[in-house]
Amino acid sequence: MNALEQLIDALRCLPGVGQKSAQRMAYHLLQHDRAGAVRLSEALRAAGERVGHCERCYTFSEAGLCEICRDDGRDARLLAVVETPADQAALERTGSYRGYYFVLQGRVSPLDGIGGREIGVRQLLERVQDGPLEEVILATSFTAEGEATAHVLAQALRSRGVKSTRLARGVPVGSELEYVDLGTIAHALVDRR
Amino acid sequence: MNALEQLIDALRCLPGVGQKSAQRMAYHLLQHDRAGAVRLSEALRAAGERVGHCERCYTFSEAGLCEICRDDGRDARLLAVVETPADQAALERTGSYRGYYFVLQGRVSPLDGIGGREIGVRQLLERVQDGPLEEVILATSFTAEGEATAHVLAQALRSRGVKSTRLARGVPVGSELEYVDLGTIAHALVDRR
Repeated sequence: MNALEQLIDALRCLPGVGQKSAQRMAYHLLQHDRAGAVRLSEALRAAGERVGHCERCYTFSEAGLCEICRDDGRDARLLAVVETPADQAALERTGSYRGYYFVLQGRVSPLDGIGGREIGVRQLLERVQDGPLEEVILATSFTAEGEATAHVLAQALRSRGVKSTRLARGVPVGSELEYVDLGTIAHALVDRR
Repeated sequence: MNALEQLIDALRCLPGVGQKSAQRMAYHLLQHDRAGAVRLSEALRAAGERVGHCERCYTFSEAGLCEICRDDGRDARLLAVVETPADQAALERTGSYRGYYFVLQGRVSPLDGIGGREIGVRQLLERVQDGPLEEVILATSFTAEGEATAHVLAQALRSRGVKSTRLARGVPVGSELEYVDLGTIAHALVDRR
């Protein structure tokens, strides 16, 4: 393989990028944006070397403790458990949560042999011993695997006497009832307030 | 900006990648594919350093002359002019063209100040002096800019007494007439054979 083919091949490690997009990206970089290619190469190297995981919440962090865990102005009674740093970022962008986070290593998936141990339940249980925690908010996805994850975590937390809650299920803001799926409407009815 | 933010920013130089995809890509690489990130970083650096342009046809090449220009088994009477190396690759994949190529630096776009000089008309005219050329096939896109490019090239070639042809316009293979746009049908009618 020559350097161009190797680049096309390497670009395919990006999620959502197949042969055709990879080729388009490689041609674009070489034809129109060689400075961008250099910058990207450097950024990949630097991020790979410098970005690790926070020792406390396991999100991405360059320091031993991430910015949020270092911030002692947050509400130490609340801990939100999410599946990925991306989910954490989404929660954080809402601006309506002021507690701390715990980032799992993904979600349980029995078929792939991924259980509580693999996603970091032990580390979560260690984390909840630490500090004046009152409530763990299970902010995993509302998919089958996310629900299974929440179930596993809720059981483990209950056995330690820690209260856990789940994000509300319901009709998304801005949607018309007619077009919302029936399972969602049923949940919104049960959880009405 | 920290290393993660810089990576997200750098990924946006890829065509079709916005803030959201860039974030997803960065998270994916750091969480699940650090080896892929290293490989991509290396491939970008290597391609940037090693991939230049063929001295004869201006396609991407690591050597002074690209593989096709070095191949003297091809038909030297034919020269296909394309807008990009990607277009050249598409023509080559059809397996039905055995001549040589000339790759333009894009297409004319008067609004952006890109004329014949910028896309390499001078180099094309030098190239057509060289060898027993009988026909230049203008394989630029069938968009407004691609048509304008073909027009500019055809004029320049005619003034040097070189015959140029254009790829046939017509109904795409596999399509039903009902769904083909009217301009295409009109051209297919005029160019019927």
